Amino acid sequence: AAVLKVYADRLSQPSRAIIILCKVNRIDFQELTVDLARGQHRAPEFTKINPMAQVPTIVDGRFKLFESHAILRYLATVFPGVPDHWYPADLFTRAKLESVLDWHHSNLRRGAATYVLHTALGPALGLTPNPETAKEAEKLLSRSLGTIETVWLKGDAKFLNGNPQPSIADLSLVCEIMQLEVVGDERRDRILGPHDKVRAWMENVKKATSPHFDEVHELIFKLKARLNPAYIPMFHNNTK
Amino acid sequence: AAVLKVYADRLSQPSRAIIILCKVNRIDFQELTVDLARGQHRAPEFTKINPMAQVPTIVDGRFKLFESHAILRYLATVFPGVPDHWYPADLFTRAKLESVLDWHHSNLRRGAATYVLHTALGPALGLTPNPETAKEAEKLLSRSLGTIETVWLKGDAKFLNGNPQPSIADLSLVCEIMQLEVVGDERRDRILGPHDKVRAWMENVKKATSPHFDEVHELIFKLKARLNPAYIPMFHNNTK
Ligand SMILES: N[C@@H](CCC(=O)N[C@@H](CS)C(=O)NCC(=O)O)C(=O)O
Ligand SMILES: N[C@@H](CCC(=O)N[C@@H](CS)C(=O)NCC(=O)O)C(=O)O
Repeated sequence: AAVLKVYADRLSQPSRAIIILCKVNRIDFQELTVDLARGQHRAPEFTKINPMAQVPTIVDGRFKLFESHAILRYLATVFPGVPDHWYPADLFTRAKLESVLDWHHSNLRRGAATYVLHTALGPALGLTPNPETAKEAEKLLSRSLGTIETVWLKGDAKFLNGNPQPSIADLSLVCEIMQLEVVGDERRDRILGPHDKVRAWMENVKKATSPHFDEVHELIFKLKARLNPAYIPMFHNNTK
Repeated sequence: AAVLKVYADRLSQPSRAIIILCKVNRIDFQELTVDLARGQHRAPEFTKINPMAQVPTIVDGRFKLFESHAILRYLATVFPGVPDHWYPADLFTRAKLESVLDWHHSNLRRGAATYVLHTALGPALGLTPNPETAKEAEKLLSRSLGTIETVWLKGDAKFLNGNPQPSIADLSLVCEIMQLEVVGDERRDRILGPHDKVRAWMENVKKATSPHFDEVHELIFKLKARLNPAYIPMFHNNTK
């Protein structure tokens, strides 16, 4: 059988979640880089595979799939080697994680992605950031981080919903928050500073997926160094 | 065992999707109206159940759940009487529907909900509509309707992905589009006009869920009549 193809750009947070899930679970896959900055997602060769012209996208034999959460669910279900905790079969545990995955789109994702685009990333992509939009996005982002803490990391939860091991929801959300590296330490610290539990949980997810987490995030630290010349990447232990 | 409790406001599109799924599949449930216009979702009795202060929300015995897609998946899985087509067990068929469900949030949902809020609905809720926001939302909405047609209703698909019967994704998306009734016929027709396939598919979903679809949408037609005095509801066969 042909090996699983993962179309991704490691600068894309949902792409990283897919790659990390594959690596941690030793899923055999071929990573095909779709360089968003070069517009490779708009090439006809790619839009034939994903008409939305977005990463991540997978091709498994004749089966094509886009939307990272759908992909994470699919991989966790179809590859027998993926431990249950990633996408628990138990109805109630799973439903609670689905709730987080659905909530993500209009809250954490929308807040973080819009904030990053309208601060540090926009100019790099030829877009003029709108400070008003950035402000609104920061509010949504901070509110979302607060929700994660008070709703899903209650007590001394190690992972979302107090689960003892990480799920695809932990992976998706933490990869999203990691995108804040590109806005520079000052803004990142202002936003993450008040959320001790979120920071502790991020560390738990990193550890549980080590060394793949850091490796897959290398590119984002390179972009950070490029966009924030004051930042010295070697202090972040992301060099290999 | 205690009966399933559904906290809903029939003016809310994801609430209607839950109620229709229950009715069509004869799931025994108690509908508890949370009147959003009166702020009942912010009452402590309700935020104890759903800290997000949003509908829909369910309570099944001791199990509480919010986010409509998570609820739809849960109901289709936990109640043995729900036919497979609503949430197919087949891995590939299901993954393709998950992709639509995930896509929904940042596309159709965001476009439609923002458009409705920044045109007809805003003033009724004491919000000043922003025409610029409405224009952007209409673009996203129209693009989303185009995507539904060209990606998921290819050929002469009766339901999404060419499935022979409706799924929870069909139900969620069609309930969202029905929200356009409140903006009045002129705007609705301008937006839906170019999308024959979307309109035909909406009719298929209505028929497949009759008579519950119309019954559950009665309230939205009443709101439409209130916001659009020129509209005569009886021509729409939504009186019971
Ligand atoms: N909800 C989608 C979001 C996918 C998405 O927004 N991908 C971005 C990169 S993070 C992309 O491909 N952007 C290119 C574009 O939209 O033009 C998912 O989770 O997969
Ligand atoms: N993604 C959520 C959206 C829920 C939602 O936005 N509910 C609205 C009504 S359609 C609500 O309760 N709004 C009240 C508020 O947010 O204050 C779902 O699908 O359940």
